[in-house]
Amino acid sequence: MDKNEVIIGIDIGGTNTAYGLIDNNGEIIFSRNILTLADNSAENLIKRIADLLKQDIYESGKNIKGIGIGAPNANYYRGTVEYPPNLNWKVVEFVKIMKEYFPVPIAITNDANVAAIGEMEYGAAKSMRDFIMITLGTGLGSGIIVNGQLVYGFDGFAGEFGHSLVIENGRKCGCGQSGCLETYISSPGICKTAQIFLEEKNIQSILSKYSKKELTSKIIAEAAENDDKIAKEVFEYSGKILGKKLADIVSILSPEAIFLFGGLARAGKLIFEPTQKYMEEYMPKIHKGHIKLLPSALQDKNIAVLGAGALIAQELHIKKS
Amino acid sequence: MDKNEVIIGIDIGGTNTAYGLIDNNGEIIFSRNILTLADNSAENLIKRIADLLKQDIYESGKNIKGIGIGAPNANYYRGTVEYPPNLNWKVVEFVKIMKEYFPVPIAITNDANVAAIGEMEYGAAKSMRDFIMITLGTGLGSGIIVNGQLVYGFDGFAGEFGHSLVIENGRKCGCGQSGCLETYISSPGICKTAQIFLEEKNIQSILSKYSKKELTSKIIAEAAENDDKIAKEVFEYSGKILGKKLADIVSILSPEAIFLFGGLARAGKLIFEPTQKYMEEYMPKIHKGHIKLLPSALQDKNIAVLGAGALIAQELHIKKS
Repeated sequence: MDKNEVIIGIDIGGTNTAYGLIDNNGEIIFSRNILTLADNSAENLIKRIADLLKQDIYESGKNIKGIGIGAPNANYYRGTVEYPPNLNWKVVEFVKIMKEYFPVPIAITNDANVAAIGEMEYGAAKSMRDFIMITLGTGLGSGIIVNGQLVYGFDGFAGEFGHSLVIENGRKCGCGQSGCLETYISSPGICKTAQIFLEEKNIQSILSKYSKKELTSKIIAEAAENDDKIAKEVFEYSGKILGKKLADIVSILSPEAIFLFGGLARAGKLIFEPTQKYMEEYMPKIHKGHIKLLPSALQDKNIAVLGAGALIAQELHIKKS
Repeated sequence: MDKNEVIIGIDIGGTNTAYGLIDNNGEIIFSRNILTLADNSAENLIKRIADLLKQDIYESGKNIKGIGIGAPNANYYRGTVEYPPNLNWKVVEFVKIMKEYFPVPIAITNDANVAAIGEMEYGAAKSMRDFIMITLGTGLGSGIIVNGQLVYGFDGFAGEFGHSLVIENGRKCGCGQSGCLETYISSPGICKTAQIFLEEKNIQSILSKYSKKELTSKIIAEAAENDDKIAKEVFEYSGKILGKKLADIVSILSPEAIFLFGGLARAGKLIFEPTQKYMEEYMPKIHKGHIKLLPSALQDKNIAVLGAGALIAQELHIKKS
């Protein structure tokens, strides 16, 4: 890539959409945030992005080499976004529509995959070729890197780890099944566990003063830090579920590290310590003590735009100069 | 690879070792079986292989392009065989010693990986880039192909799926842990289940006439085909354990197919039907009905030599002409 060219990274979220122009040093030279307007069509969002981006590109004097996009429920192979939660879209041929505005190489994938590739290009996984990114937010996403490449699976639906089963006939999941991992390990999942523990256990807790609507994983983390017994038990319980399930990934893929990213990961050692403990306990003997559980190094940076850019840069075999 | 060159595929087993000269059409033009002599050193075996192979190569008038080896507990990255079950070896620098006899590219990996690569080159996975090979014998091995490549993990120990935990404080495993998948799903595992069911359930069974030593998974399969209730329950129970665990692999990797290979896989629908049923039940909704569970197409062929050859051919980017 020469110095007159830029890669565009686009991060589509439920509320905000951000894009950036990334130069041949891997630096964002210009970025912009717009409202996603979740009730509008995808076509509307794409047109608004295109109009602004064309103007920004014109003003930058650069040419677009390629566009990478991160979006919820994106399918890399099909170039689609399919029934994204929190967006009023169905199946959108996102890449195809974008190409009508920008006839350049364009690739799309889901948020967790973008986070994984961002960590590999700019974060703590720079020297790693085999690792897992777990994103913890309203759901649980997973991006898997094997041999230095994202794993899409044969149909583009690898990384559905959040919908693997942990408890038979367990909590009802948005996907229609029951007992999925993300119904326990996610911000709403942790809150649900706290509510159940408050009802079941006859112990005084700071958490009981919050209504179901008010409770957040951040509040539970703060309570745990203040030695609240219920809150601490919530994290112990959650770490056991997550650690046990991560041990299975270890047995299959032997990753160098597993990263936790997103809101719930900010709870720090409250979630890391029990998760690590149970992951170690349940993993095959040959792996014990060898697999790192780490916080993302990009936790507080806007990595989504850079990660999306890295997605297309990798496709085009562009190395940072 | 030109027509004067051959690839050597070597399959090291607990009892027999086989090697073959594979030409540029991917055909074995000469093969030989020798005794492994499990009580002897690895150096002894390698010397015997080298002496015979040098003579065979001389007589063939060909040159060796590379050597691929499949062996129990082989580590691809280190070129070692480490504490193989059924062989009286410790850590053997197999590739290094072989190179003293044959200064050509040499690669080694474990049996399950060789079976996976063999299936991809010569079997039912020819058109697949993402699939899993499960080998069922005295243990449970797994070879994983992602993006058309074998998955070794960061340390060469990916595919330890047989030592993932299925039942807490369950059966004692040879690895030192308890409750590993292969203590339930393997020939000895199935026999153990039958013995337990015979003791626990007060039902008449053909199986009760066999001693613990006489019982084999083949006998249990024959009994099940003759409608023996205990034997049928053994397969149902085993299929549930295996299917549930395979559902986790599906959620992570979304493979096009999972292949079952080896002795226990010969039980056919007795093991395939319950495994498929429970795999479907436990896998994420998005995958249901899309992932094939298949018998290896090479079940009754000597695929180990060809697979070992394919390992080094892939390294050398040799395509069949």
